[in-house]
Amino acid sequence: MTGVSERSALIDLAHAIEPGDARFGRLIDRVGAVDARDRIANDSTGLPNGDGVRLRLLASRSDAADDRAHSLGARIITRVDREWPRQFEDLGDEQPVALWVAGAADLRLLALRSLAIVGARACTAYGEETARSWAADLCSDGWSVVSGGAFGIDAAAHRGALAVGGVTVCVMAGGVDMPYPRAHDALIARIADEGLVLSESPPGESVRRQRFLSRNRLIAALSRATLVIEAAARSGTIATARAAAAMNRPVLAVPGPVTSAASAGCHRMIREGTAILVDSAADVAELLDFSGVQAAPDFPVDPRDRLTRAEKCVLDSLPIRASISTDAITVSSGLSPSAVWAALGVLEVGGWVTADSSGWRLARLTPTR
Amino acid sequence: MTGVSERSALIDLAHAIEPGDARFGRLIDRVGAVDARDRIANDSTGLPNGDGVRLRLLASRSDAADDRAHSLGARIITRVDREWPRQFEDLGDEQPVALWVAGAADLRLLALRSLAIVGARACTAYGEETARSWAADLCSDGWSVVSGGAFGIDAAAHRGALAVGGVTVCVMAGGVDMPYPRAHDALIARIADEGLVLSESPPGESVRRQRFLSRNRLIAALSRATLVIEAAARSGTIATARAAAAMNRPVLAVPGPVTSAASAGCHRMIREGTAILVDSAADVAELLDFSGVQAAPDFPVDPRDRLTRAEKCVLDSLPIRASISTDAITVSSGLSPSAVWAALGVLEVGGWVTADSSGWRLARLTPTR
Repeated sequence: MTGVSERSALIDLAHAIEPGDARFGRLIDRVGAVDARDRIANDSTGLPNGDGVRLRLLASRSDAADDRAHSLGARIITRVDREWPRQFEDLGDEQPVALWVAGAADLRLLALRSLAIVGARACTAYGEETARSWAADLCSDGWSVVSGGAFGIDAAAHRGALAVGGVTVCVMAGGVDMPYPRAHDALIARIADEGLVLSESPPGESVRRQRFLSRNRLIAALSRATLVIEAAARSGTIATARAAAAMNRPVLAVPGPVTSAASAGCHRMIREGTAILVDSAADVAELLDFSGVQAAPDFPVDPRDRLTRAEKCVLDSLPIRASISTDAITVSSGLSPSAVWAALGVLEVGGWVTADSSGWRLARLTPTR
Repeated sequence: MTGVSERSALIDLAHAIEPGDARFGRLIDRVGAVDARDRIANDSTGLPNGDGVRLRLLASRSDAADDRAHSLGARIITRVDREWPRQFEDLGDEQPVALWVAGAADLRLLALRSLAIVGARACTAYGEETARSWAADLCSDGWSVVSGGAFGIDAAAHRGALAVGGVTVCVMAGGVDMPYPRAHDALIARIADEGLVLSESPPGESVRRQRFLSRNRLIAALSRATLVIEAAARSGTIATARAAAAMNRPVLAVPGPVTSAASAGCHRMIREGTAILVDSAADVAELLDFSGVQAAPDFPVDPRDRLTRAEKCVLDSLPIRASISTDAITVSSGLSPSAVWAALGVLEVGGWVTADSSGWRLARLTPTR
């Protein structure tokens, strides 16, 4: 089976290629993962750094990668897997090769309605409170929040999401088993429990400067828009915003007091026209809904668009993580019991919902093997 | 002499026409002030409100207007006077008919390098401090500050200018002898002493709602740019900014905490692209210098452009209000004594400088009679 060998080759390659290395991305796009792996192993890529990647490929123990991921409570997804976010296509040659993902939610579905919230590690109380409360408001409004788990704005955004039972995604610069910063061990574990923790780097890989930069492009790629809350004039946050802008995703920025150096980067982006000023969570939600409509032609089609109104209505009745009975769905959707049953049938076949002992819940994707 | 009778007619008209009434502005532009006055007196303007204006014209005691102004420490300037700011031409039909001006500075020269600073009456400590310190910085940099003398941002801007010995211009909605708000009596008197207080309305006229609105357009017209520091979403401040934008003058706005309602109007203008975000006085100065260059073709030519380098250099050596000796000018300009004397001769003839007992000073314009 081509899919299986392609997937296995992608996982092998993910052990050897540094995240975001466009030269190998182009090679894979051109000849496919299986052939790319063979060329690297035979040192026949013709690429300058081919030998270093070859040595890593040969040294990697990627044959039991799925089992190792499972033992860590994670799964591997690649571009041939159904959970692979199609938004990654906007990264072009820098699309990741594979992702290690810990957590029950479906990354592809989440990414269709997610917002990156990023900002300064050295944030102020104003920035922290803005990140926390806006993340909470936007999660309550059905958005998921993607960030990097760092000190400051990142952590406040994750915590705001968690506080309202929202779903949040933490994109790591090292392996999913290498929480960073260490002081956020518990926070990152909780995110994996209630949302998703993911990385392009295989388990055991430590953070490196270059990996933070390539991680930032993933945060932008996984989100429909990037919201910057406090950023110094030159910072990794600005790099994330730039990555979002390069994919034609909206960049939003929160203003602050002109006396605050932590807002200088936001002010500069607004001034230069590279970010849109937003001054409330409602503002953000409005812009996101608006830009969703505007950007539709260039944007991955939301699979929900293929559902009927009744099916969407039933799907919207399901809580993000808990199960719910058919009767409760009938009440909350306002549909007839037979319409609910019909919709649930379609949704189950489509992989949207699954039945469990206490009723229905949103489908958790099991790793594709 | 046509100039004299035209001037006298303009002063008569200024007693009868409400500030900013474009219908009478058009009439004056078309037939001249003398003829416009006659037509109003004969009730032959064909304009709907002609009769009310006629009655006011007949009732006004404008024949001794210059003397009355002088007795109040003021002078009248009209569009035929040399001190009339040519920037007013951008107001088109809404150009004022005459102005009552109290204070020693030359309005036309001031207006060539002036910035309007406006904002909320109900400002926060943040806004007040920003207005005060930026006004001080910009005045120290050679800019004059135009505002409306109101509570809040206006007063803070005037005070910031005064604190560094800068020149500030207060544009009143009522007569120059009717300080408003009364709590600012002393502030307004000090502005008249050290800068300029002016109004389109004759002495004795009280403030009215409509006059605040027409006053706002003058603030914008007298300035190369308008800086908004805190403004509620709907406010007179926004009207001033709109007037500036209508004249293609830059509108600058200061961001603030998103939690502050006082910054909501600024954020909205920035978001909508009607104002440029600025986050320091240096930012403002840079934009002003830049836009001065950019806007040059549409902008009244600075009479300074007709001076030689040496003459400008001598002119720049003169302090804003004090006198300075020829020796001191020689030292501070770095020119030879003979070059300084030559330049002073030209500048004196051109009306730029006058000699007094302690040396040279920037010319004060005496009212044109």
